[in-house]
Amino acid sequence: MKLLRVGPAGSEKPALLHTDGTYRDLSGHVGDFAGDTVSLRMLDAVRGINADDLAVLDANQRIGSCVASTPTFHCVGLNYTKHAEEAGMEIPGEPILFNKAASALCGPNDDVIRPKDSKELDYEVELGIVIGEVTEHISEADALKAVTGYCVINDVSEREFQARRLGQWVKGKSAPTFGPTGPWLVTADEVPDPQTLGCWLKVNGEMRQNSNTADMIFSVAEIVSYMSRFMRLMPGDVIATGTPEGVILGMEGQPWLQPGDTIELGIDGLGEQRQTVVDYSA
Amino acid sequence: MKLLRVGPAGSEKPALLHTDGTYRDLSGHVGDFAGDTVSLRMLDAVRGINADDLAVLDANQRIGSCVASTPTFHCVGLNYTKHAEEAGMEIPGEPILFNKAASALCGPNDDVIRPKDSKELDYEVELGIVIGEVTEHISEADALKAVTGYCVINDVSEREFQARRLGQWVKGKSAPTFGPTGPWLVTADEVPDPQTLGCWLKVNGEMRQNSNTADMIFSVAEIVSYMSRFMRLMPGDVIATGTPEGVILGMEGQPWLQPGDTIELGIDGLGEQRQTVVDYSA
Repeated sequence: MKLLRVGPAGSEKPALLHTDGTYRDLSGHVGDFAGDTVSLRMLDAVRGINADDLAVLDANQRIGSCVASTPTFHCVGLNYTKHAEEAGMEIPGEPILFNKAASALCGPNDDVIRPKDSKELDYEVELGIVIGEVTEHISEADALKAVTGYCVINDVSEREFQARRLGQWVKGKSAPTFGPTGPWLVTADEVPDPQTLGCWLKVNGEMRQNSNTADMIFSVAEIVSYMSRFMRLMPGDVIATGTPEGVILGMEGQPWLQPGDTIELGIDGLGEQRQTVVDYSA
Repeated sequence: MKLLRVGPAGSEKPALLHTDGTYRDLSGHVGDFAGDTVSLRMLDAVRGINADDLAVLDANQRIGSCVASTPTFHCVGLNYTKHAEEAGMEIPGEPILFNKAASALCGPNDDVIRPKDSKELDYEVELGIVIGEVTEHISEADALKAVTGYCVINDVSEREFQARRLGQWVKGKSAPTFGPTGPWLVTADEVPDPQTLGCWLKVNGEMRQNSNTADMIFSVAEIVSYMSRFMRLMPGDVIATGTPEGVILGMEGQPWLQPGDTIELGIDGLGEQRQTVVDYSA
């Protein structure tokens, strides 16, 4: 299934992308997608609904983040070798974890707001994992069974806030609109192998990132298993799994994103996003 | 007001500590405390309720975390000079931010579970802030107006997971039961100056931390104002504001917490916590 949320920010309805291409209204059947509503158990119930019986929603509506909120917004850092190299960092021997504030979540096509006092705005196309059940100490062999589905995430980053503000990265990862997520939450049954997905990102039509999740240092299964040793993963937890090479941080001259720039990104089978950069206004 | 949640884990009811010392049931009037339910606006509505009219709840019940969940669990690091010194770290020039997984939240008197493979379990008494409204770019002068209230937090920490697992601290801060929070959410009107609160922590009856929030490097107002430049703070966001000196990390011989140890901690006016350390079992 491809699940999405459509409507104005804060008033989205949970919906299904039908095989006929229409959005079908699930709001009479499930609560807004978040936490337990995207658990494996709840989505099994949604699977029992005949999509033909659901009302068609206007397709010319805004799409929201594919989850309304997340218990914890997790990120993996430096998970592609060439990206670690371009960032001037060592290849990590185990996954590097950090967080975004949950309030960074936004729709896949919402404007990206350049924060006040920001000079070094950057993008990162990433495969997003959504967790489907309470998960602790899961083996790599079983880890994919705890995944509800996958989505596209732009892990928007402010490099000065991230790197030159005393080390912990959350400051450069958390501004409003720094987490475009969606358009769809694609359930795991439609992604038989999450390590074979082409992923790409363009700025103003120019290809900047063009890679494949096959190049991850730590696979989805390794990430979920590893994280579950240190914390209890919860239904609806979002994990951004790291970005491949091609970010502005690693480019000559570092042409940071500017108001008016257009970012397009996508991952095979998970849909595409398109954002325009705008400046902060109070 | 002193707000709390009483009942078995996962089935707590929102309640009020009445001036007569009894717990009064608020569940007919408000939803469970979390997010918007602890916003300044919602708590103004609770203030209008006559506590004498509320049912008395059995006082011999477990107390849960004073918020059921938090949109984002924020922490400030190294916010007391002597603690930075004992940790062998530089005095920070601006607040250091990191996160706990929201699933670390637990009741103030719940057992603290030493994680599997943990050897370096430590405690940290901290003043907790709960945010009361959507907050961005707030001045220091106005910052306390965005605070719903305060609580005691034990920022339980695993030092090997935190420090020797590639830098970002979340791995050592996020295990289940690493966030005892409460007993009460004390509304800000009862804490006229959050920078004058004695805070202490004992292990097996021995005083280990004994300080005052007056010694913070960055005040509550500075922390909230600073954070609001980098992210949108949300109603119900919890911020642990850092611990004073006296943690095991800084002690000679580093006598890490062991199963059977008892931790007691408290902050003036905000109540006390008491935990027993137990070992992980699958």
